Amino acid sequence: MLKEAVYHRPKNNYAYAYDKETLHIRLRTKKNDVDSVRLIYGDPYDWKEDEPGKHRWQTFEINMNKSGSDALFDYWFSAIKPECRRLRYGFTLTNRNETIYYTEKGFYEEKPLDDTAYYFCFPFLNEADVFNAPEWVKDTVWYQIFPERFGNGDPSNDPPGTLPWGTTEPTGKNFFGGDFQGVIDHIDYLVELGITGIYFTPIFKAYSNHKYDTIDYMDIDEQFGNKETFRHLVDTCHKNGIKVMLDAVFNHSGYYFEPFQDVLKNEENSMYKNWFHINEFPLKTEPRPNYDTFAFVPSMPKLNTENPQVKEYLLEVGRYWVREFNIDGWRLDVANEVDHQFWREFRKAVKDIKPDVYILGEIWHDSMPWLQGDQFDAVMNYPFTNAALQYFAKNEVKSSEFANIISNVLHMYPNNVNEVQFNLLDSHDTPRILTICHDSIEKVKLLYLFQLSFQGSPCIYYGDEIGMTGGQDPGCRKCMVWDKDKQDRELFTYVSKLIHFRKTIPAFGNKGQFTFIEANDAENYIIYQKSYQNDYLYFVINNSDEARTVLLPKEMSSPLQNLWNGKSITSSAIDLEPYGFAILSR
Amino acid sequence: MLKEAVYHRPKNNYAYAYDKETLHIRLRTKKNDVDSVRLIYGDPYDWKEDEPGKHRWQTFEINMNKSGSDALFDYWFSAIKPECRRLRYGFTLTNRNETIYYTEKGFYEEKPLDDTAYYFCFPFLNEADVFNAPEWVKDTVWYQIFPERFGNGDPSNDPPGTLPWGTTEPTGKNFFGGDFQGVIDHIDYLVELGITGIYFTPIFKAYSNHKYDTIDYMDIDEQFGNKETFRHLVDTCHKNGIKVMLDAVFNHSGYYFEPFQDVLKNEENSMYKNWFHINEFPLKTEPRPNYDTFAFVPSMPKLNTENPQVKEYLLEVGRYWVREFNIDGWRLDVANEVDHQFWREFRKAVKDIKPDVYILGEIWHDSMPWLQGDQFDAVMNYPFTNAALQYFAKNEVKSSEFANIISNVLHMYPNNVNEVQFNLLDSHDTPRILTICHDSIEKVKLLYLFQLSFQGSPCIYYGDEIGMTGGQDPGCRKCMVWDKDKQDRELFTYVSKLIHFRKTIPAFGNKGQFTFIEANDAENYIIYQKSYQNDYLYFVINNSDEARTVLLPKEMSSPLQNLWNGKSITSSAIDLEPYGFAILSR
Repeated sequence: MLKEAVYHRPKNNYAYAYDKETLHIRLRTKKNDVDSVRLIYGDPYDWKEDEPGKHRWQTFEINMNKSGSDALFDYWFSAIKPECRRLRYGFTLTNRNETIYYTEKGFYEEKPLDDTAYYFCFPFLNEADVFNAPEWVKDTVWYQIFPERFGNGDPSNDPPGTLPWGTTEPTGKNFFGGDFQGVIDHIDYLVELGITGIYFTPIFKAYSNHKYDTIDYMDIDEQFGNKETFRHLVDTCHKNGIKVMLDAVFNHSGYYFEPFQDVLKNEENSMYKNWFHINEFPLKTEPRPNYDTFAFVPSMPKLNTENPQVKEYLLEVGRYWVREFNIDGWRLDVANEVDHQFWREFRKAVKDIKPDVYILGEIWHDSMPWLQGDQFDAVMNYPFTNAALQYFAKNEVKSSEFANIISNVLHMYPNNVNEVQFNLLDSHDTPRILTICHDSIEKVKLLYLFQLSFQGSPCIYYGDEIGMTGGQDPGCRKCMVWDKDKQDRELFTYVSKLIHFRKTIPAFGNKGQFTFIEANDAENYIIYQKSYQNDYLYFVINNSDEARTVLLPKEMSSPLQNLWNGKSITSSAIDLEPYGFAILSR
Repeated sequence: MLKEAVYHRPKNNYAYAYDKETLHIRLRTKKNDVDSVRLIYGDPYDWKEDEPGKHRWQTFEINMNKSGSDALFDYWFSAIKPECRRLRYGFTLTNRNETIYYTEKGFYEEKPLDDTAYYFCFPFLNEADVFNAPEWVKDTVWYQIFPERFGNGDPSNDPPGTLPWGTTEPTGKNFFGGDFQGVIDHIDYLVELGITGIYFTPIFKAYSNHKYDTIDYMDIDEQFGNKETFRHLVDTCHKNGIKVMLDAVFNHSGYYFEPFQDVLKNEENSMYKNWFHINEFPLKTEPRPNYDTFAFVPSMPKLNTENPQVKEYLLEVGRYWVREFNIDGWRLDVANEVDHQFWREFRKAVKDIKPDVYILGEIWHDSMPWLQGDQFDAVMNYPFTNAALQYFAKNEVKSSEFANIISNVLHMYPNNVNEVQFNLLDSHDTPRILTICHDSIEKVKLLYLFQLSFQGSPCIYYGDEIGMTGGQDPGCRKCMVWDKDKQDRELFTYVSKLIHFRKTIPAFGNKGQFTFIEANDAENYIIYQKSYQNDYLYFVINNSDEARTVLLPKEMSSPLQNLWNGKSITSSAIDLEPYGFAILSR
């Protein structure tokens, strides 16, 4: 057995409180090296006197299940409810050659029972420490709106030089007049699609068309409307069962943010000089800014979130829009460059007002340090995005590699994090999926099929559902197409049908446990299972441009029905068209 | 190369901010598998256009040093100061067969430079997140006092039935009248020994002789004195350069804690019923308590630290003794069974009053989740204790195993944690070291030599320094021996000489970087190095009961002096008596 491959460490994705009474325990072993794993566990204070004077720790054992594999490792899983919420535990690993015991102190050939100190420790399951993202997020299908480009419902607030809707390619600087009224006007469209949450990129007063260069965090940009319009927008969304999430750019301000303007003007005499990280006065921007910025962009000065004044200002921003406008979520821009301490206080500030606000961090890398229950509820799940695009859109990875990466993604975080992860396929920061797919609607459909049947909280980028195209920004920020003749209505119907399935079939959505059944490299197809209680769904996806006959594995041998088209499956194989799929139900 | 053995994950002991400008990066590889490791790194936003239209991320490389090895793994280390406090990084691993690149996304044969997304991410070194234990702890030598047994300076406060000092074996129930005045009276003794901090086990009003069964957290137990005596004690300590740390038992109260008495009396009508975790009324204790307790002890009801009232009460306890009596540290009993959220608030509460208070958790297991900068400054370092006892006291492990375990201990946590870890050899909860060593003073001396030259904050259990004995508690809680004829004065002199070395030779103490040079199983000796700037100390320790001639490794070949006895070493070997040692300086 390869001991060097065995890994476990408590209080992260390997051992965590799933809810106030359940612990989840995972173990990593070398791929195909271990045949079975048993969890040895007990209460640390539960001792019995076997013989007079000889005490022995009381342990129990259960089998762990193999929950997935990636390129190098197998992962094993058990859920357990310790009666007194305390746990010491270890692992029995068996393969054809040997049985060994793995504990916090290393490997043993005999199970050590004279002391609990050998064992891994989950000291106490305190409810206060349980990761507790809002329940509603698990059932939400998001829709991302770039407000300048979704709908122009009120020409009276158009900025000077506004171009006629959709007549010109978007650039970094042009304006088309999108606004809140435009969203309100099209609320029926969103309801028809079936989405239940909108993520708005920034709406606060700013100079640019993307509004990431905040001038005033406490005010709406007038090109979108005013606070009344915004209140009306939120109410309209809520009445239609749609949550509203705003974008908080707290890492840096815009150039025209008043405190920064004051520093530019008054230099070291500015009362705001400690609102930023100024390395020396006078401020310079060449060759690089002599103050901290986002990247090296002089117009995006990094905010000093350790300064109590700045902290209080930004926390009040966080509180204000929740308290006064009843928004449901905050998406945090460049979240990982802001200090953890700030985010801990931010969480407390906004959740004190509305406990089920969703806090979503923009982090592109491994984000475990922010997902321990004290900071974010989720991050934007780019590892998911990359894997899905590499497989379905770009054919860059084989079926087995895709299964490896997705299994790895699922084992990076606790399950209760996976259930609320923000699973996007594209955004205002990337090319649109249809463009990435070289205009293949079939590929886009498979992307949606996978995204909408996967664990997490899926997000659709506005217009993708009707076949809009666009390259890297600003190309991906075109005006929403409202001319039905120019919309791909068949794609719209397809997406809304998937959303309907997700909402109405428990195993399809977040309640369903995801497992790969097969990943076939030669024929370029995959089969995965979603299971909930006694319901089993099998997704058979042909990712190739040729028709395939897929032999169904034995575990799928009972009579099956293809939920997508209602047909019964009576043979042990299924024919799929190029990029075809089936959703089989027992 | 064994890929399964390679491990790195940011924001814990593998990558952390050492100070406000320095990041420490570690990597784990299979033991003796990799010949060299280079760190590849850069600022994520630092790109150059190599050819028109072709951008390439700008990276740098430095060699990593092998910082230690345990039974299965080698560990590699680099310190780095990223100019803009942002870092993306990966590793180049080379052995005789191959060179591979290790990143967050896995292993590559070519260094990927088209995207920083491959790389590990330390997004921003924010000062607020830097682990910042008090500086003074790094130079502190602790002395643990069990107040009932150190000195009876005021017979007027003796509890009824107090026994004459030291005339009887200690039991779980007897009293000898130790008090604060007894400590004040013997302050010169402590100064002579050289210790600079006292850790007092509980002093608050309680029923037992050990006082872990708190009745009133806001009052001194009258057998020790009153608040005035305590204030005088703290002042006396401070005047003599000695810090004072108290014991906070916040996981559970004592049986006679008023709120618990109220619940016992009024059951579900008690206004304090939510101060505890009562599973049902009426309260029962058989067969096991139907309320949460420490272990299964009915008289130690677990406090509900999630209840805002309880939280505020205990936080005020934390603040009160710091604010009103200027204590310097809190040692937190059963710290890992209390919720993390409570400790985060506790840290803020006490550090707001006195930023350099030391917060020490009692945790016997891997404690990384509490040592991220937001909760504790250190934990009681039992893995250190166990390793030292197994090797020096019990001969249970060979030299190489000892080196493996100690290297593992040093790599479990960041270096800035290691510098303030509370390194004890025994305590009121364990047999005394001389008893564990079967009365071998030689072995005790080696334990002290190792403890006092190791990284961390060493602690001496009262009386060990004069050769007191005692088994598992209550045996280890004998009255301090004040009759000089019954004290082992030679041991006292030995310990105080080591303390003097630690205080006066930078490389000897915490500034010195610890590295094993040799661990000889056949001859049962070890050599380790402590280095600081250009000073190198070599500790050569014969852990056997036979005389040894130790050949000095080449790196020690320059003229050396034995600091312990002042003798020059001119040959390439050194003769050591049974349990003998040398401290060689270049």
